[in-house]
Amino acid sequence: MTSTSPTRILLGPGPSPVDIRVLRAMSRPLVGHLDPLFLDIMDEVQELLRYVFQTSNRLTIPISGTGSAGMEAALVNLLEPGDTAVVGIHGAFGERMLDIAERTGARVVPVRAEWGHPLDLDEIEDALRRERPRLLALVHAETSTGVHQDLKNLGDLAHRYDALLVVDAVTSLGGMPLFVDQYGIDVCYSGTQKCLSCPPGLAPITFSERAIQRLRARGRKVQSWYLDMSLIEKYWGAERHYHHTAPISTIYALREALRLVREEGLEARWRRHELNHRAFVAGIEAMGLEMFVAREHRLWSLNTVRIPEGVDDQRLRKDLLDHFNIEIGGGLGPLKGRIWRVGLMGAGSTPENVMLVLEALRESLRVQGIHCPSGREAAERVYHA
Amino acid sequence: MTSTSPTRILLGPGPSPVDIRVLRAMSRPLVGHLDPLFLDIMDEVQELLRYVFQTSNRLTIPISGTGSAGMEAALVNLLEPGDTAVVGIHGAFGERMLDIAERTGARVVPVRAEWGHPLDLDEIEDALRRERPRLLALVHAETSTGVHQDLKNLGDLAHRYDALLVVDAVTSLGGMPLFVDQYGIDVCYSGTQKCLSCPPGLAPITFSERAIQRLRARGRKVQSWYLDMSLIEKYWGAERHYHHTAPISTIYALREALRLVREEGLEARWRRHELNHRAFVAGIEAMGLEMFVAREHRLWSLNTVRIPEGVDDQRLRKDLLDHFNIEIGGGLGPLKGRIWRVGLMGAGSTPENVMLVLEALRESLRVQGIHCPSGREAAERVYHA
Repeated sequence: MTSTSPTRILLGPGPSPVDIRVLRAMSRPLVGHLDPLFLDIMDEVQELLRYVFQTSNRLTIPISGTGSAGMEAALVNLLEPGDTAVVGIHGAFGERMLDIAERTGARVVPVRAEWGHPLDLDEIEDALRRERPRLLALVHAETSTGVHQDLKNLGDLAHRYDALLVVDAVTSLGGMPLFVDQYGIDVCYSGTQKCLSCPPGLAPITFSERAIQRLRARGRKVQSWYLDMSLIEKYWGAERHYHHTAPISTIYALREALRLVREEGLEARWRRHELNHRAFVAGIEAMGLEMFVAREHRLWSLNTVRIPEGVDDQRLRKDLLDHFNIEIGGGLGPLKGRIWRVGLMGAGSTPENVMLVLEALRESLRVQGIHCPSGREAAERVYHA
Repeated sequence: MTSTSPTRILLGPGPSPVDIRVLRAMSRPLVGHLDPLFLDIMDEVQELLRYVFQTSNRLTIPISGTGSAGMEAALVNLLEPGDTAVVGIHGAFGERMLDIAERTGARVVPVRAEWGHPLDLDEIEDALRRERPRLLALVHAETSTGVHQDLKNLGDLAHRYDALLVVDAVTSLGGMPLFVDQYGIDVCYSGTQKCLSCPPGLAPITFSERAIQRLRARGRKVQSWYLDMSLIEKYWGAERHYHHTAPISTIYALREALRLVREEGLEARWRRHELNHRAFVAGIEAMGLEMFVAREHRLWSLNTVRIPEGVDDQRLRKDLLDHFNIEIGGGLGPLKGRIWRVGLMGAGSTPENVMLVLEALRESLRVQGIHCPSGREAAERVYHA
């Protein structure tokens, strides 16, 4: 990439477009990780994270790694050999949770749904009743399928069987309604490069008091020193005890990105994501294309579209990139070649981007001999309804 | 911190000052982590990392975490329960290696030196002969003490006993001579915020073919999914297989920081660090202060100075920060209140900073009633010799 390289329009599964205010914040000269100026920034980031997570949890911080590091932090801090975990799996990121949980030496019991569908609550309850696990873990917004898993009542359900509830909110935080305290979630983590529109590199995470008690009651050390919350909390807490050097510049960026969320308001931001999602779907359907997920289970942040018969997926995505500078995502694993993943996340969730990607898709299908009607008017009707 | 906050002069143990070219690179709009534009950047970063590590190792990449994540990656990929590791410990970061290695379930045998002194090679050889460990791990540049551990012949020594050699080069890479291939190092890792003068958030790491063979021969999965090199290498290798979203902006920054190293030349950069170190020491000694480490074992990048009797350490460092905008580091663990740690690393290693910190120290001691002669002339003589 050179200084004349094109600016991409990031409508894939992340990273999402980053506001210029955030980019500018990241280019500020650094201060030390124990400088009083930086300690103030840490406090502000924690307050803002509590707001976006809708929690009053004291232990709410950004992990110094990407969303997957947040997933690993959640699981390795709570599990140890001899424990049982129930993991709900309805896509690639649920499978990742299973893999990570198994590496702790815990026994992991999967509860699966077909990719493209949410989990069945009765099956989850059966597993909780049967296994009496240490925790129940699942994905709120499955980035590999575009499925939204309803979280209401899940906290009560898990707690009834004395299990902790761990939720992956990588593709929902800041883009879909999520209420950590109200839902009874014990550990929730996310990434910064999705609906928060901050560069990747940090994983916001929050631990309830119940989760902290579990951490205190462990029989052995957390297997990861780098992700050991009992050490990390002493740097983010009153002690300011050095653990590792915080990624200063990315934390500058996160603070600015979170300020933008607060300025917009969480509720308004969710509504924006919903509206642009609805317009996109109206456009797609008017073009004669099909969404992959049933209406009631769709994410607003990540839209999955079935690839029509006979389309060359790789070529189409290359055309979008080369001719329109638009990035969208392909399918993962069994969905490779079967779906596109169109992210309308954070700063990328705009009417302009909806119109642009609909027209670019139409044109890129046309060069492959597939003629669709325009989706623009149908999309516009959603905005003017 | 606000836009009117002061610009700090970072002369602590890291982060070091970051060049404006690097800050600008980091503020560029993002591209996707599988975008052809980004894949080119990845290739360039790998080539530049091979240059600074002085290696031809194929598996040479930045880990998506800070230097401590690099330490954990090195150890968890090579060790598993039942293994033995010998860890040389001459400061806080050796102790950290011990802690991380023990969390793998391996049996860890420490070989200790008093803080402020390097390790004894005979004691290391005794341990290798006795324990026949999977690996020998030690710190090249101990950031907690300022001690340089000579690495020559260590590769041969470790390999004679069929052990892998793991080296922590967090505070030496780019600032002190280090030849990964020539020294026979099997895994070497570093951080970006020291002598490379890039913001923290990445850990450059390199694996020899011997280390990769060990990885292939493991009996069980690496305990960390996030740091599992057998998965990560498929993203950085020809497959470009998605693992986790790379920290795009920080990798932009790293590329630019490494380009600056190459433009200066590694040899010239080492000489610059040496010269400014010598000038600093001359100044300190002319002031009547004392270095903590014997001349022949001192790091050029991180200078440790004994705190004179009767000085209030906290107050002095606060004065440096408040009145001169200079950050230096205090001692860790048993050295708290006994030494200062003055980093002259990367872009921070300049004659101007040497003069500034000598004068600022003198003035800050003066307000505590301790009157030293100026160190400037002695420092200048080093430059004009």
